[in-house]
Amino acid sequence: MGRTLTDTEGLEVLVAEQCLELLATASLGRVAVTIGAVPAIFPVHYRLLDGQVVFRAGDGTNMHVAVADTVVAFEVDEVDPDWGRGWSVLVVGVARHVRDAEARSGALHRAPDLWASGPGAHVIAILPGLVSGRRFSRTA
Amino acid sequence: MGRTLTDTEGLEVLVAEQCLELLATASLGRVAVTIGAVPAIFPVHYRLLDGQVVFRAGDGTNMHVAVADTVVAFEVDEVDPDWGRGWSVLVVGVARHVRDAEARSGALHRAPDLWASGPGAHVIAILPGLVSGRRFSRTA
Repeated sequence: MGRTLTDTEGLEVLVAEQCLELLATASLGRVAVTIGAVPAIFPVHYRLLDGQVVFRAGDGTNMHVAVADTVVAFEVDEVDPDWGRGWSVLVVGVARHVRDAEARSGALHRAPDLWASGPGAHVIAILPGLVSGRRFSRTA
Repeated sequence: MGRTLTDTEGLEVLVAEQCLELLATASLGRVAVTIGAVPAIFPVHYRLLDGQVVFRAGDGTNMHVAVADTVVAFEVDEVDPDWGRGWSVLVVGVARHVRDAEARSGALHRAPDLWASGPGAHVIAILPGLVSGRRFSRTA
């Protein structure tokens, strides 16, 4: 077993590999974007495909416009109801529309169940630049 | 029963009163901030007190600095594991440190269980400016 790193707050610091493993276990993430200078957070149904965070966005959403070729934050967490244990992973990276027809149908073939409001016309991929994560346990 | 409004994506639009009711039922929210031009999302253990979103932040966190007197996005959601039903509420407002000793101890007295990493020295309150929410059900 390797040593566990903790940050200045006493939280266990997760390395990138652990973060990606945790991202692969979940399907509900949140994307932070800025729309007309106003910050916003949207929940998305995502899948980790080839190391990228992939989700769909409806054509009528502000989000698909806001995330295009923009650096976004993407976060996934899991916390016990009593806040005894939990973890969170933060990904920062450039989001882009998957416009290439082959890449798009390939992603939808591998993740056909990805939900989006409305027709979900757009497929968005975030290429992780920075990946960080923390884990806490109050009972340990 | 009143009429249900839907947006262009077919999602049910929640009015502010419904949003605040949902916020009062949960304790895990996420705050989006910008730290040195890099966007970030942090999970927080919050409570709705007098219509404000209140949480604690450790002294060693970047977050308590980043949110001071800044417009932030705060989001709460609940989605079924199979993505059959879900809702999300977004609050945008100015976050401020509760520095007044009486207000601070009053908040901690009413919400003594609020968790924060480390000593959680800071009490942060977001005064909702914009409140919006959506609900979806694929089985309805």
